[in-house]
Amino acid sequence: MKNKKIILASLSPRRIELLKKWGLKFSVIPSNIDENHNLKRPSSIVKYLSYKKAENVKEQNPNSVVIGSDTIVVLNGKILGKPRNKKHSIQIIKELNGSLHKVYTGVSILSDNKQIVFYDVAHVRMKKLPYEQLKKMFGKHMDKAGSYAVQDKNDSFVKKIYGDYYTVVGLPYIKLKKELKRFNINLK
Amino acid sequence: MKNKKIILASLSPRRIELLKKWGLKFSVIPSNIDENHNLKRPSSIVKYLSYKKAENVKEQNPNSVVIGSDTIVVLNGKILGKPRNKKHSIQIIKELNGSLHKVYTGVSILSDNKQIVFYDVAHVRMKKLPYEQLKKMFGKHMDKAGSYAVQDKNDSFVKKIYGDYYTVVGLPYIKLKKELKRFNINLK
Repeated sequence: MKNKKIILASLSPRRIELLKKWGLKFSVIPSNIDENHNLKRPSSIVKYLSYKKAENVKEQNPNSVVIGSDTIVVLNGKILGKPRNKKHSIQIIKELNGSLHKVYTGVSILSDNKQIVFYDVAHVRMKKLPYEQLKKMFGKHMDKAGSYAVQDKNDSFVKKIYGDYYTVVGLPYIKLKKELKRFNINLK
Repeated sequence: MKNKKIILASLSPRRIELLKKWGLKFSVIPSNIDENHNLKRPSSIVKYLSYKKAENVKEQNPNSVVIGSDTIVVLNGKILGKPRNKKHSIQIIKELNGSLHKVYTGVSILSDNKQIVFYDVAHVRMKKLPYEQLKKMFGKHMDKAGSYAVQDKNDSFVKKIYGDYYTVVGLPYIKLKKELKRFNINLK
């Protein structure tokens, strides 16, 4: 599938960085979807939204392989998406402080004759930080579910990750690598 | 030109972040060009390479507006591009320490009936940092001319910028906003 155009249906700089790092040649076309749904299970939500994003872009780009993705954070059964505004970001960061929470990332890969949808989940143990340090994160990662950036080494809000580190960033490396092979696409 | 597709011909996460921040709806298609040239003037180089990148993507995407961009750093008349490897990144960062240098960014905007090519330059005064602090930057910004990230607030390698801050990041805001208006595209 060397001559197939690969499209990432997300303008997330983190996901773009990851795919570049993993040696993929790709374009980026953001989806334009309504993210409303009435699903309850986190795994269903991220799979459904990743599929909806990928499908939206695939429809306008036949002959391509489209990768869609969606990430949510789950804390005590409550779903935390992207912060709506700075106030919301502050609230989320305070709630995550010292917590053990889950990060779900769903991925859909759509070609003309194959559709694969999967998800991965990682558990994240946060440090308990004093307010002075928490403050530095307020309003900083507004485009990210959970509003914190695990890959930002200067933040060090995260104590330990149980599972695939990259699932927390926004693309599950181990599963994605495996599934892309079925499309003859190889990640580093 | 609301129905024209806007394409950024660069996978630079910094440029993507900027255009998102400025409220643009766009796709990203990286160019695939040979960056060799025999130009001498920094302003000519960044204009030429931004044009070559944009043209390469425009050719395959008629009916779109393509934005190409190129950035170089000039220190004492010497051109510093992207670091070739970690060793080169270390050398560049040491040379930039305590320096006054220039950052040139060229931009080309190509539609079906209009082609605009321009550049901007900003002067940057760097702090003189002890080796221990410099070390933290080694190998960190390998995809960036000059190998340092002005927008990374935790770095604070930069003392003062004379000119457009965003020219140093990779897209000159003031000039880009003005030129895009000629394509009926408005930035925030």
